[in-house]
Amino acid sequence: MAKVLSPIIPELAALVHQTPGTLSLAQGMVGWDPPPGVALAVAEALATGGPALHRYGPLLGDPELLAVITAKLTNQNDLDLIGAELLVTAGSNMAFNAVAQVIAAGPPGEPSEVILPVPFYFNHVMAVQLAGAVPVPVQAGLIPDPERLAAAITPRTRAIVTVSPNNPSGVVIPARVLAAINQLCALHGLFHISDEAYEQFVYGEEPHWSAGSLPGSAAHTVSLHSLSKAYGLAGWRLGYMAVPQALLPSLLKVQDTVLICPPRLTQHAARAALAAGPAWCAPRIAALAKLRLQLLAAVAEQQAQGLPVRLLAQPDGAFYALLQVAVPLSFDADTLMRRLVLEHRVATLSGGSFGLDSNDAGPVLRLSYGLLDAADLAEALDRLFSGLRRLLATAGPSDQ
Amino acid sequence: MAKVLSPIIPELAALVHQTPGTLSLAQGMVGWDPPPGVALAVAEALATGGPALHRYGPLLGDPELLAVITAKLTNQNDLDLIGAELLVTAGSNMAFNAVAQVIAAGPPGEPSEVILPVPFYFNHVMAVQLAGAVPVPVQAGLIPDPERLAAAITPRTRAIVTVSPNNPSGVVIPARVLAAINQLCALHGLFHISDEAYEQFVYGEEPHWSAGSLPGSAAHTVSLHSLSKAYGLAGWRLGYMAVPQALLPSLLKVQDTVLICPPRLTQHAARAALAAGPAWCAPRIAALAKLRLQLLAAVAEQQAQGLPVRLLAQPDGAFYALLQVAVPLSFDADTLMRRLVLEHRVATLSGGSFGLDSNDAGPVLRLSYGLLDAADLAEALDRLFSGLRRLLATAGPSDQ
Ligand SMILES: Cc1ncc(COP(=O)(O)O)c(C=O)c1O
Ligand SMILES: Cc1ncc(COP(=O)(O)O)c(C=O)c1O
Repeated sequence: MAKVLSPIIPELAALVHQTPGTLSLAQGMVGWDPPPGVALAVAEALATGGPALHRYGPLLGDPELLAVITAKLTNQNDLDLIGAELLVTAGSNMAFNAVAQVIAAGPPGEPSEVILPVPFYFNHVMAVQLAGAVPVPVQAGLIPDPERLAAAITPRTRAIVTVSPNNPSGVVIPARVLAAINQLCALHGLFHISDEAYEQFVYGEEPHWSAGSLPGSAAHTVSLHSLSKAYGLAGWRLGYMAVPQALLPSLLKVQDTVLICPPRLTQHAARAALAAGPAWCAPRIAALAKLRLQLLAAVAEQQAQGLPVRLLAQPDGAFYALLQVAVPLSFDADTLMRRLVLEHRVATLSGGSFGLDSNDAGPVLRLSYGLLDAADLAEALDRLFSGLRRLLATAGPSDQ
Repeated sequence: MAKVLSPIIPELAALVHQTPGTLSLAQGMVGWDPPPGVALAVAEALATGGPALHRYGPLLGDPELLAVITAKLTNQNDLDLIGAELLVTAGSNMAFNAVAQVIAAGPPGEPSEVILPVPFYFNHVMAVQLAGAVPVPVQAGLIPDPERLAAAITPRTRAIVTVSPNNPSGVVIPARVLAAINQLCALHGLFHISDEAYEQFVYGEEPHWSAGSLPGSAAHTVSLHSLSKAYGLAGWRLGYMAVPQALLPSLLKVQDTVLICPPRLTQHAARAALAAGPAWCAPRIAALAKLRLQLLAAVAEQQAQGLPVRLLAQPDGAFYALLQVAVPLSFDADTLMRRLVLEHRVATLSGGSFGLDSNDAGPVLRLSYGLLDAADLAEALDRLFSGLRRLLATAGPSDQ
């Protein structure tokens, strides 16, 4: 267990807790509540759901929700579900974890490998480690280059993971790149695990694209989806996935052991949220788009004023951006993150948690604009940039 | 994954589904709905919970629920919580799974072992297997003999699991036996994992006793609790555990990766259920006590009529009993279970899933009286015993 990455969010939460008044650019959530239909659906289920609501239910999820998910994946994601099965979990982290447990099993002494393009989502690394497999972080560029991923494939590789729109970079991976990665997986007998938690959060030219929409991809593609982000249901723990049929028997073992069945009351909430659909999310995401422009403008202004910062990639999706302090410092990004909270009351996440080392080019921070309103975002960015100015003045560029 | 036990309940559910009108003596649930306060608490949380309800929450569980659980474990279980931490999960299966993941890690090539007295609860075996550790089933008697458990300890043993009141036997393990097992664990540096899902279901002389109430036991005792049974909340997925402080850092990694945080809305339900408390459960469990007597009387009557059946143990707790067909048959308990559904429309669970082999003494079935009313129980037992009569007449005692 010592080898398993430590969770960063609880550590940061503790720091923020001891620093009252901190503004957070660190949270992986949106600021809106779920669609009103959610509370109504829950009330109705409680009134009319009968005993079934309280009993153990089907392992995969309740058939009514599975039908709604089938329609959603078919119509919104254009998924080819022939040869696929659906599974509901208490959050999409749990879905990834179940897949990791299932594909990790290798011959004793020869642990399986899972390729994770850098930057990765830290819970993916942790799940792979918990499953006893080896996470293989690959520097393949912020838009991962399929050839560099291919070069990392070994006889032990079982899967390649992509996250688009990306946490932490905000990058939307173009369809042709995702398709190339998916075909690479097919060619090498690997699973393509496609984490689409931020599928609705796109602001640029590049639309969201699901690798599972490639005809025939169902046999080797795992599509992970979450209700935490677009529907404001993070605290409700609702996720689901489409998986190759061949994985189902093993996944049922994991589901039976870990969850038995997804909570039944909250499955009613999921149905109501999916019924509200992208039309309900659209104006909310449009509001985020404005905050994104505000953040981009603030960074450009700082650059114009000579502050050595830059965005590692064009953040066209999710609600994150990676800010690099483009000079080497005498301390790493973890320390920078801690000092920004304690000394400047602004929370960010260190790039270290996403596999971004504080190398010669300077430490990297993940900024989130998901949860703040415009005024708080302005104030948080203010604290961040004036904080960085102070820290650069005192802790200066390192000598190395 | 092939080595991981297959889940039995979904297979049985499919059989029952294809045999309309089947009565079930197989279900691990009670027939009552949750306390009325539960729906009220959910409604109130939805009305007044504010945004926090919808956001990711504390990994361990919300402080308000943790406070209620602290009081419950202190007052009802007499637990010594000094040196213990509490963790809320989506069902107590998930709690066991998290502990298994954490304690399984051993040196490469030397998998850890977990001792499971037979009969065991199948999901415990599956969790240990998923974690990459080795389940060690030990024939230590239905009231497990600490000396026989001690004989199974090796340098790789990490824990001993007890389930009292027991699924599947209904046995309530006496306090002195549990204390001896707990001390054995302390002596050998093992964890004692005490599954107390059925803590309120006791009908005989022996009261339920928590090993964690031994002074100083917190450092090596894991106490698992569920709201699924006594509070009729199986479909809500609510469990919690007290764990040694030393395990917490690793458990946080698992919780962060699998669940992030327990669902927040249902935590309000948990508080309401625990507020209703044992006084609310008592009359309901008293009604089960009558069904238990009905089952005992029916078995005695069949024995008087010469049917070769017997109860493997005095079922003084939970809502289960183990019925042995006390002659060898030409097929095993799994087949017996399947034929009873398909030919006699009564569902039971094969003892095979609990580590009870169909040996010379004859196949064993687990009977549950948790979910049926008196009339259906009578009818189900009728079908069972007339079915057994038919099968004994045709498939007769085997030649071996
Ligand atoms: C890429 C990615 N996947 C999955 C998740 C977890 O989502 P859920 O709340 O559905 O478990 C997150 C949350 O931050 C995420 O960033
Ligand atoms: C011994 C035992 N532990 C745990 C559980 C699972 O409980 P939960 O619903 O809290 O996951 C069961 C359910 O049958 C059980 O029999």
